[in-house]
Amino acid sequence: MSYLIEQCKRLKEASYALGMISTKDKDEALRLIIDSIKRNKDDILAENDKDVLAAKEKGTKDSLIDRLKLTEDRIQGILEGIETIIGLKDPIWRSNDVWTLENGLTISKMTVPLGVIGIIYESRPNVTVDAFSLALKSGNCILLRGSSSAIHSNKMIVSAIKEGLRRSKVSEDIIELIEDTDRNVVKEMLTLNEYIDVIIPRGGADLIRFVVDHATVPTIETGIGNCHIYVDESANLENAIQIITNAKIQRPGVCNACETTLIHEDIAPKFLPMLAAALKDKVELKGCPRTREIIQAAEATDMDWAEEYLDYILAVKVVSNVDEAIGHIQAYGTKHSEAIITENYTNANYFLRRVDAAAVYVNASTRFTDGGAFGFGGEMGISTQKTHARGPMGLNELVTMKYTVVGNGQIRQ
Amino acid sequence: MSYLIEQCKRLKEASYALGMISTKDKDEALRLIIDSIKRNKDDILAENDKDVLAAKEKGTKDSLIDRLKLTEDRIQGILEGIETIIGLKDPIWRSNDVWTLENGLTISKMTVPLGVIGIIYESRPNVTVDAFSLALKSGNCILLRGSSSAIHSNKMIVSAIKEGLRRSKVSEDIIELIEDTDRNVVKEMLTLNEYIDVIIPRGGADLIRFVVDHATVPTIETGIGNCHIYVDESANLENAIQIITNAKIQRPGVCNACETTLIHEDIAPKFLPMLAAALKDKVELKGCPRTREIIQAAEATDMDWAEEYLDYILAVKVVSNVDEAIGHIQAYGTKHSEAIITENYTNANYFLRRVDAAAVYVNASTRFTDGGAFGFGGEMGISTQKTHARGPMGLNELVTMKYTVVGNGQIRQ
Repeated sequence: MSYLIEQCKRLKEASYALGMISTKDKDEALRLIIDSIKRNKDDILAENDKDVLAAKEKGTKDSLIDRLKLTEDRIQGILEGIETIIGLKDPIWRSNDVWTLENGLTISKMTVPLGVIGIIYESRPNVTVDAFSLALKSGNCILLRGSSSAIHSNKMIVSAIKEGLRRSKVSEDIIELIEDTDRNVVKEMLTLNEYIDVIIPRGGADLIRFVVDHATVPTIETGIGNCHIYVDESANLENAIQIITNAKIQRPGVCNACETTLIHEDIAPKFLPMLAAALKDKVELKGCPRTREIIQAAEATDMDWAEEYLDYILAVKVVSNVDEAIGHIQAYGTKHSEAIITENYTNANYFLRRVDAAAVYVNASTRFTDGGAFGFGGEMGISTQKTHARGPMGLNELVTMKYTVVGNGQIRQ
Repeated sequence: MSYLIEQCKRLKEASYALGMISTKDKDEALRLIIDSIKRNKDDILAENDKDVLAAKEKGTKDSLIDRLKLTEDRIQGILEGIETIIGLKDPIWRSNDVWTLENGLTISKMTVPLGVIGIIYESRPNVTVDAFSLALKSGNCILLRGSSSAIHSNKMIVSAIKEGLRRSKVSEDIIELIEDTDRNVVKEMLTLNEYIDVIIPRGGADLIRFVVDHATVPTIETGIGNCHIYVDESANLENAIQIITNAKIQRPGVCNACETTLIHEDIAPKFLPMLAAALKDKVELKGCPRTREIIQAAEATDMDWAEEYLDYILAVKVVSNVDEAIGHIQAYGTKHSEAIITENYTNANYFLRRVDAAAVYVNASTRFTDGGAFGFGGEMGISTQKTHARGPMGLNELVTMKYTVVGNGQIRQ
């Protein structure tokens, strides 16, 4: 039996007990973990230094090293995240759907934990704590496969979490870290249907594709965002500039950043120069032929419409109407976050209903698609598929349900 | 481009319009389909005769031929199923979750159709109509892959449905039947993530396994039921006999039939002879060693505990307490339907909470796990996985959601 299967067996076994534990005991365990992370803070920072040093030696990009790096402040932020989750409502053993059949059977649709959640994630070690805390509060065990570049940090963080759990009423077996950095271990993990109830890949497009291609365990795809902002004929143009600027440059490397803006032809001659001025020296523009008649921009190809730049680049296209904008979004979007800027009530409602995406916006930045911003106290990832969960996955997305059926001798006729 | 991809493109395109269509127009389309099936009834029966004849020539089992056969009465039943679905509440564009952030953004979690649903099913041609009707009412397009043994029936039924749709405001492109009976077409279907939002396999264990192993499209596993009934120390023994008899023999070939019964050791000496008498000449018993000390039964092996007999066979095991019963269910069950027969309030509640299955019963037959019996007006299958939907899948399980986010210029700080 592989070590991974031993880990999975411990998790599965622990999940039965965890599903029965009271909210009070789960919250108390989270508090003890806060204490334990505080006590082990120096060791966590020291182990993180090893990861950062190794990344530098490998010539890793500065932006990735920044994602990897932990500081006193960032650990403080992680602990505040746990506090937030302690304050949220326990999502387990709740119902708003109970009914009684003619024959007297009473059926209740009750929320229950998923069981064992696998998460495969890249770089940022704070995800280790966020994902674990959401899992514990929702009664789920968690199997973590972090990036090899964060292995020292993750080992120390998981060790601190287990130390906290040992002082609590919750078993330390509810969390396991895969320490083997061989990719074949991921492949094995993806087919352990007997032990793992769902796998969430959180990272770049390559990782997501690898997981979807190889998994037999149900998976939830996350985080690929080719997001659009459509500026309608009737838009408040000042608002539109503010929103596009925010969605493009406030944090360009994230999935809810805007990658393409679509401009109604009637306002393009006025709006495009305003946009070009606002983004000057900050963002590289790539335009369709009609755009390039009005402002200076590199030529946008079909590749540009499909690309998630995650960079200071914006594709710009002039469209004839809201239907052409929606058609473009349908053809190239990734069903993440899409926005319309408009004062036209009918177009706003049409866009909201008609666009197929996890989050559809009117007159606001796409950057709000985020568990924290939505008020979920964190997120396990942002689902871009349609089954199980869509958009930011917080506590309420980490549950499944069962029907309890209570009778007094009923048999089927 | 393969013909399958052409079909999928038509479905995807049609799904955008279908998602916007009113309840009234969907219901009217369903009524026109009832008319059309009535008008084409003789042709449907004639085509079905061809399938039945071919099955007989191939030496197919009588029970399978019975599943395949359509009659006037069965067509009447199918039409009543559509009537029921017309009467159900439209599940689309509803919400019970709307909130406003501090910054004034109002977020609504709205139900929307999944888009394009693929269903792979065996034998019974009535599933063609049931699945289509549920899909239409929930705003979904459907790609059908029926059994090759029902191909003539399915072609004629789909032709009648399309005839009805042509008189309605709904496009006839919302339904496509895969007529190619080569299994490689199924393999292709399973990887068309661009066009198909979810695939539901409905059939035997081999089909489910094939689909899960080869699919990159999200799938929902259905219908494998190794269901248990545990008779607790305090059970009303007359009730227990009635319930086990019903769950075993009322229709043994279905997934919610009982396959193993677990008996508390303190009542085994009294209860097992009662059970043996009740099932005498009807059901073959296979017992654990302790069972065989009390009644006559063949020896049950580990294979028996794991098997879904779908036949007049019942495995019997004596257990020491409710925890041993739950342990056995956890080890061998398929998370479908599990029951306890007890008068002990604490044990009943413990079993309901602790057993991990789609439906957990107290003092009732497992045979009720069914979309019709639950009041869903039919079902697309019974999910035995934990993501997206669990248990019978009716209209409310054929939806996904999106967040609409409405603002007046909000940007992320």
